[in-house]
Amino acid sequence: MSATGEAAGTSPVSDIGRMTGFSDGVFAIVITLLVIELRVPEHRPGELFDGLVEEASAYVAFLVSFGYIGVIWLNHHTLLRLIRGTTLGLNWLNLWLLLGVVVIPFPTAVLAAAFAHDGNDHDRRVAVLLYALTAAAMSAPWLAFFSYLHRRPALLGEGVSAAHVAAQRARPITGMLLYLFSGALGWFVSPLLGLIGIVVMILYHALTSEGVRRRWPHRRAVRR
Amino acid sequence: MSATGEAAGTSPVSDIGRMTGFSDGVFAIVITLLVIELRVPEHRPGELFDGLVEEASAYVAFLVSFGYIGVIWLNHHTLLRLIRGTTLGLNWLNLWLLLGVVVIPFPTAVLAAAFAHDGNDHDRRVAVLLYALTAAAMSAPWLAFFSYLHRRPALLGEGVSAAHVAAQRARPITGMLLYLFSGALGWFVSPLLGLIGIVVMILYHALTSEGVRRRWPHRRAVRR
Amino acid sequence: MSATGEAAGTSPVSDIGRMTGFSDGVFAIVITLLVIELRVPEHRPGELFDGLVEEASAYVAFLVSFGYIGVIWLNHHTLLRLIRGTTLGLNWLNLWLLLGVVVIPFPTAVLAAAFAHDGNDHDRRVAVLLYALTAAAMSAPWLAFFSYLHRRPALLGEGVSAAHVAAQRARPITGMLLYLFSGALGWFVSPLLGLIGIVVMILYHALTSEGVRRRWPHRRAVRR
Amino acid sequence: MSATGEAAGTSPVSDIGRMTGFSDGVFAIVITLLVIELRVPEHRPGELFDGLVEEASAYVAFLVSFGYIGVIWLNHHTLLRLIRGTTLGLNWLNLWLLLGVVVIPFPTAVLAAAFAHDGNDHDRRVAVLLYALTAAAMSAPWLAFFSYLHRRPALLGEGVSAAHVAAQRARPITGMLLYLFSGALGWFVSPLLGLIGIVVMILYHALTSEGVRRRWPHRRAVRR
Repeated sequence: MSATGEAAGTSPVSDIGRMTGFSDGVFAIVITLLVIELRVPEHRPGELFDGLVEEASAYVAFLVSFGYIGVIWLNHHTLLRLIRGTTLGLNWLNLWLLLGVVVIPFPTAVLAAAFAHDGNDHDRRVAVLLYALTAAAMSAPWLAFFSYLHRRPALLGEGVSAAHVAAQRARPITGMLLYLFSGALGWFVSPLLGLIGIVVMILYHALTSEGVRRRWPHRRAVRR
Repeated sequence: MSATGEAAGTSPVSDIGRMTGFSDGVFAIVITLLVIELRVPEHRPGELFDGLVEEASAYVAFLVSFGYIGVIWLNHHTLLRLIRGTTLGLNWLNLWLLLGVVVIPFPTAVLAAAFAHDGNDHDRRVAVLLYALTAAAMSAPWLAFFSYLHRRPALLGEGVSAAHVAAQRARPITGMLLYLFSGALGWFVSPLLGLIGIVVMILYHALTSEGVRRRWPHRRAVRR
Repeated sequence: MSATGEAAGTSPVSDIGRMTGFSDGVFAIVITLLVIELRVPEHRPGELFDGLVEEASAYVAFLVSFGYIGVIWLNHHTLLRLIRGTTLGLNWLNLWLLLGVVVIPFPTAVLAAAFAHDGNDHDRRVAVLLYALTAAAMSAPWLAFFSYLHRRPALLGEGVSAAHVAAQRARPITGMLLYLFSGALGWFVSPLLGLIGIVVMILYHALTSEGVRRRWPHRRAVRR
Repeated sequence: MSATGEAAGTSPVSDIGRMTGFSDGVFAIVITLLVIELRVPEHRPGELFDGLVEEASAYVAFLVSFGYIGVIWLNHHTLLRLIRGTTLGLNWLNLWLLLGVVVIPFPTAVLAAAFAHDGNDHDRRVAVLLYALTAAAMSAPWLAFFSYLHRRPALLGEGVSAAHVAAQRARPITGMLLYLFSGALGWFVSPLLGLIGIVVMILYHALTSEGVRRRWPHRRAVRR
């Protein structure tokens, strides 16, 4: 592309303001829509308390989903702090990444329905596998984002080293492998074990939301 | 953490732009979703007026909920004006605080259903207790936020004193105690008295949305 | 309030960034939720076309509502360009103003239902009156906003004169009077005439969205 | 309009911050609401897997819609990078443009329903025609936006040439013509061919989201 052609249009690097605003809007809506699933329980007069208790599993699912989307937001917050501008490529990767955020309520609802008190063992295996495959697929755009940045140090913010960005690739790779492992565990061994694996992975993402260090991540790497 | 390690990543203190944008998105969605509960009443031809009048309690509930979330937004607006940057800890506390904002439509709906004309006295006690416990729990992250800030004066905005921040802790503590008292009143004495206690607390938060003074809060502390 | 007390807290005037972001979120959600009312029509195989044609009134209602909320957004855009900062009082007035924005889909839905092909004349009078009263009530916070600004010239943005702000009060006053007149027309004379009055008022707000001049507003006052 | 009158109000050119924030809110909500259509399938115990497989077409529709709205967002991102300020005229054009964004889920749902396994050939022709007409109509405000900018070079951002803006008009014109052609193809020849034409157009908008060059668009014009 000639320098003249370049000057006639817009620069390939643009401010991240819109990417941030759009992403925050998506996160805000997804995390808020979760409450729509909570409804006043059908109950006979005088039995509201029993009605509420029966819905306990829905409240737990709500809290876990809220926490999970909150964790992804924290990770995204850290992610965008790495860069000082965006390109068409990063915009596409961010859209791919948001696809995962928008999708997550669906496998979560399938999981909650399967683990409700009258659930079936085979359905639980299916639900854990679906969730694990979705979560593993969600890790792919994060890996692509870090790899893209690693190849374009000019996009990095002040004080952010290429080595730091390279080290972050360990997070989505760990995510993909362990989500797949959790899915296999849930499918072949026990849906409950698979579910525990998924919860462990959410905690892993919570603890590493500010990024990992070059060497083996130790507790001090987590910001107090 | 070594200075080198520090320089390779990102600073522990970041701009509050995203925290603000994400929070405003959540507030905007919660306050707007309330109107979805208002529906064209089922009615026979020529009886639209009667249909609308019968729904009067739903309109009152809508106005109260709108006012309450508006008040929390005003308090949050004042809260974020205290700080000049955010940290991972503050981001977590803000997520916890938003959890309360997102949850509030649920106990509100339970309350509205219980106080509808055919409600049952025992269910009303349950509904008031649920609301009061939720509201008391919602005060906890505010207390944690003020305490966190009090221990980190470097995060405070220009002209904000640590003493001012310390004094603000009185608000969530008052909230927790009086919401619990309202809940006990509603459960043991009268659901209507408990409800009045809750409304008084919302007014208290409205009047102190710009913060309280060190000494006993007097009217002049409320901004004209 | 002592100067010391003042210095310990935050300034009474704050940046309008959050007020803007929160308001834009509310506008964006209200204008987008309208499409949820549009559904794939129930139809027998091969009769999709007839099904779509039967819903024509719903599409007209959607377009009118979209246009109306768009017009209010344009007016709000002009409104916030008058000021250089916000106060607790303006934040309350803005919340009151947003209440009107959030409410508008409800009387619109009542109106659309009443004017559907099998509507009843008495119900149409009720629906027009409800809409007109709501729209008249929505004008009140705009009047209060302009009056508040007129008494506090220090809040005005650069190049905005107090006389200009004073002149803007004519818009909500006109709105209140003519909406009430349209409501009376619809109730006592003919619902269709009342409806025409309402549409005229929306066009009035569209044409004056950039503000009116001191003297009688003429066409040149509308920005090209 | 006298210079005095001008000074008393606000400048006709304003910052694009609010236009951007409002637009991003609308895009974020539309793209997120798509997931609401995905529901846990009704199924007998042990048949969750079959239930999920049966819904495969809904998942494809979700992915296509997500991609399409993402592509429009990328185009809008490029659009607003052309300008350094907004006017009343541009605000109206942007509202018109957002109307298209908000509407798109409706013809998409009609299309998905018509192409479901028990769809009828005549209904499919209707659905493809509806979609194509909507998409062609959506191109109109983009053409108007570019033409408006072309006539007002003072609004263009730094380094953006009027020739570049003029060249962009080719995109919505191509869109309008080829969408109408796809609609005619779907109506008169084969709904499937019409559908393929629509998908090709979405890919065209994806590939030209950063704008086209003066001369015939070649691959290098697409940003790597």
